Amino acid sequence: MNSYFHFITPSGKSSVVQAPPYHYGADFITVYFKGDPEKLQYFLPNQLKVSDGSAVAYVSDFVCTVSENDMEAPYNDPALATYGEAAVGIKCSYKGNPGVYYPFMWVDRDWSLVRGWSLGYSKKLADDIHMTRLHKYIPKVPYYGPGVKLSGYCARHGSRLLSVSLEIKRRGTPQDLVSSPSVYGLRYFPANTPGQNSVNELTEIQKGNGQLGEEIWYGEGKVELGRSTNEELEKIGSIEPIFGLCYQCGFTNYGSKVLEQLKS
Amino acid sequence: MNSYFHFITPSGKSSVVQAPPYHYGADFITVYFKGDPEKLQYFLPNQLKVSDGSAVAYVSDFVCTVSENDMEAPYNDPALATYGEAAVGIKCSYKGNPGVYYPFMWVDRDWSLVRGWSLGYSKKLADDIHMTRLHKYIPKVPYYGPGVKLSGYCARHGSRLLSVSLEIKRRGTPQDLVSSPSVYGLRYFPANTPGQNSVNELTEIQKGNGQLGEEIWYGEGKVELGRSTNEELEKIGSIEPIFGLCYQCGFTNYGSKVLEQLKS
Amino acid sequence: MNSYFHFITPSGKSSVVQAPPYHYGADFITVYFKGDPEKLQYFLPNQLKVSDGSAVAYVSDFVCTVSENDMEAPYNDPALATYGEAAVGIKCSYKGNPGVYYPFMWVDRDWSLVRGWSLGYSKKLADDIHMTRLHKYIPKVPYYGPGVKLSGYCARHGSRLLSVSLEIKRRGTPQDLVSSPSVYGLRYFPANTPGQNSVNELTEIQKGNGQLGEEIWYGEGKVELGRSTNEELEKIGSIEPIFGLCYQCGFTNYGSKVLEQLKS
Amino acid sequence: MNSYFHFITPSGKSSVVQAPPYHYGADFITVYFKGDPEKLQYFLPNQLKVSDGSAVAYVSDFVCTVSENDMEAPYNDPALATYGEAAVGIKCSYKGNPGVYYPFMWVDRDWSLVRGWSLGYSKKLADDIHMTRLHKYIPKVPYYGPGVKLSGYCARHGSRLLSVSLEIKRRGTPQDLVSSPSVYGLRYFPANTPGQNSVNELTEIQKGNGQLGEEIWYGEGKVELGRSTNEELEKIGSIEPIFGLCYQCGFTNYGSKVLEQLKS
Repeated sequence: MNSYFHFITPSGKSSVVQAPPYHYGADFITVYFKGDPEKLQYFLPNQLKVSDGSAVAYVSDFVCTVSENDMEAPYNDPALATYGEAAVGIKCSYKGNPGVYYPFMWVDRDWSLVRGWSLGYSKKLADDIHMTRLHKYIPKVPYYGPGVKLSGYCARHGSRLLSVSLEIKRRGTPQDLVSSPSVYGLRYFPANTPGQNSVNELTEIQKGNGQLGEEIWYGEGKVELGRSTNEELEKIGSIEPIFGLCYQCGFTNYGSKVLEQLKS
Repeated sequence: MNSYFHFITPSGKSSVVQAPPYHYGADFITVYFKGDPEKLQYFLPNQLKVSDGSAVAYVSDFVCTVSENDMEAPYNDPALATYGEAAVGIKCSYKGNPGVYYPFMWVDRDWSLVRGWSLGYSKKLADDIHMTRLHKYIPKVPYYGPGVKLSGYCARHGSRLLSVSLEIKRRGTPQDLVSSPSVYGLRYFPANTPGQNSVNELTEIQKGNGQLGEEIWYGEGKVELGRSTNEELEKIGSIEPIFGLCYQCGFTNYGSKVLEQLKS
Repeated sequence: MNSYFHFITPSGKSSVVQAPPYHYGADFITVYFKGDPEKLQYFLPNQLKVSDGSAVAYVSDFVCTVSENDMEAPYNDPALATYGEAAVGIKCSYKGNPGVYYPFMWVDRDWSLVRGWSLGYSKKLADDIHMTRLHKYIPKVPYYGPGVKLSGYCARHGSRLLSVSLEIKRRGTPQDLVSSPSVYGLRYFPANTPGQNSVNELTEIQKGNGQLGEEIWYGEGKVELGRSTNEELEKIGSIEPIFGLCYQCGFTNYGSKVLEQLKS
Repeated sequence: MNSYFHFITPSGKSSVVQAPPYHYGADFITVYFKGDPEKLQYFLPNQLKVSDGSAVAYVSDFVCTVSENDMEAPYNDPALATYGEAAVGIKCSYKGNPGVYYPFMWVDRDWSLVRGWSLGYSKKLADDIHMTRLHKYIPKVPYYGPGVKLSGYCARHGSRLLSVSLEIKRRGTPQDLVSSPSVYGLRYFPANTPGQNSVNELTEIQKGNGQLGEEIWYGEGKVELGRSTNEELEKIGSIEPIFGLCYQCGFTNYGSKVLEQLKS
């Protein structure tokens, strides 16, 4: 059986998604914020230590993405090559090595769930992810630039979980992006009955090919976190937005390196 | 009551959409095709005369669109400012004036339905409209250019109604766009009980501010029309694709001029 | 052209929905509440006079519905015969005749929009309508009865607009339903350019065949109204829930009688 | 961390779904069919041996379902307690013990994916699952009984993958249900980088509490299998429908017993 995931068949053709490497090209509205480090530690695996409360929220449009094993997907099956994503990330370190961990990541496609889980991204499905999209040729609506306002949101089961907004003040630079040397994750698959194996691995996602778009926009950002019976965003407590960015980028996820096997 | 449409309130704030003018910025995968003129005439109001069988099918991403009365929508309510659209158009003439009429147009937002109907576009809701989206910064996936293949589709009630595809051969020019001097439509609202008024007007949509993106791509196009209990696409019969284009454009719809009051 | 609405074709087969009569079978979670009569008057056409502030909110599952001109729809096109609906209704009178008017009604299908508008119901599309559904044969989850709790919600563009909940206390009776002798509506279609006709008619919806399911459940109800850039629910102000019901019913809408032509 | 699955938090509250047991109450349109045993073997793990070509297809409405660890979900979060499912199952045996294996199962909720995968059900997300729903109180539309026709479908990425239909001929009996002593599955989680653990277990799902609704309807059934770039349904080849059933049932999945650890 050659499938990367369900459906499991000899050809692998029916797999919800093919194996990595995965390539991505995406547009982001990102807001950096500060929270209470103790409260943020709650959301981290014990092996990760919260930083100074620095965190990030974004809503993004993954305009194009493919598995290297299925490079024709954008043409053969457009719904398998584009999706929306929203997330909250927390700055932290593993054995002193700084990075970021995303306890909450919502996407709007099942194959993106599976890809993410197999790398260690903690994902659930959103029912509705939308963000401001501008177009070069629409009359009377200014394109990206100072004074332009952008927003994005993510909703699940009828509740708005995350909203970000940005009022552009000036051009930004690559240095404005708060880069994280490492992206940490959890590969996890549960057991529910004795005799079953499970997976519980702290991972570092193996990234590469990072490329930042020429246009980066810097401005005043806002973040609103929602409340729902199936979420715990309110445990983040009060937060203070620092600034926001709007940018495009591309990158590759090759797989994920196991840092530690955790107890299940 | 100042609403353009439901919900009808004194402030007009709850209207599903505000009044025109409407501004648009959109990306198109368009395939020109030829069909049997007699068969195509079936889909036209009697006052419109089919041309030589020339027709067009497209799947498009209306990246950004606003009512001039609600210019903040892309920021305040991103889901009110972006939608997908697919359509079939037939070249025709009204009293000798050449134009195009779209008997079938599917969109994925209610406010786009209402805007369209109020201008004269014949719209229904699609459950799923997707098209190839490329991104400048994704590794290993080429951006628009010769050899690149694109596709798009529209599905409703579980049936694929329209698929278009394009294999880019070369750069195109503005002259490759088969321009239609006029866009004809039907403003229509039914009566179901004696004493009710109705609307049945042949219109010409008042367009302006047309602007074409610099990048136009020309290539081999294909169109597939589907079949469903609630559609009549099979009555178009066999068709022959001529060529396809991929381009961006912007324009404004100011309203629609009544050409004739039709009998209800 | 024999279509009731778009798409307009000679056969009428492509119409998004056929003409009335419409038959309905639906399950309701309904909460009666009291609001400030002056505030509620804001949402009524001038010709309707608010009652004592009595109002109603519901989330419902229109399990099965058909046009009498398309009785095979539940089999031929299941997505054309079932939908979700949520609404707020205000008790009022027209020339002294008591009734109810629904300023806000959300549904999740385009054909339900069109049917509603053509009768006079003020509808917009919801992205997400869900309510508690119980099943006779699921182990360990009690079926309808005292102590059982139910809820429902409606969200649009990522914002929850309406939530209702009910804790069943006892069996109810048909007398618990606050019946409205008349249902008032607005048939409305806008003009956007001189020379266009429009429709603006105060109507009474012609109902019949009303049948109430044997099981009616009475209990404590709650209503929460949301806030959104494209809604005005906050203008309803503070409300007091009276009680809630859960029931099934069937009925027919034959069309709508024009009470007055309004000024556009 | 007490989550059953992502999001992984100490409280477990943010988990996309809680651990089993899972209880279910569902309505089915089921069609039994015969295919070519050799072709069907293709879709089975090697350890399972195809039977005589007997197979089944269904579209179903999982009206109510809960985890025993979250019994309030139908009230607290209705979108976490109801979903649609469509599937194809193949009769087979494991070491001589007869059962059924479902190589293809589509659902419309992420938490149903996760539950299923953790038990061994091979699931992907559908964009659109609909089936005929009848209602006791709708005028003029007959409720279940001889002559009534029902249908259901499942679509993903704009392609219809599975359609079933049933024309009821007579009342059925519990004996008409082709019972499968065992339900086999695959618990599967992939590795993509050396050092990662994976899961690949042939399981038998531990079912109980089975209860069949009193009304079972028997009739002529039809099945149509679709084609898509991300599916292999055409490899099933030609099939012959035997008969169809419409029924309600309830059951519990307690977990899944590992039959064999497979090679990854």
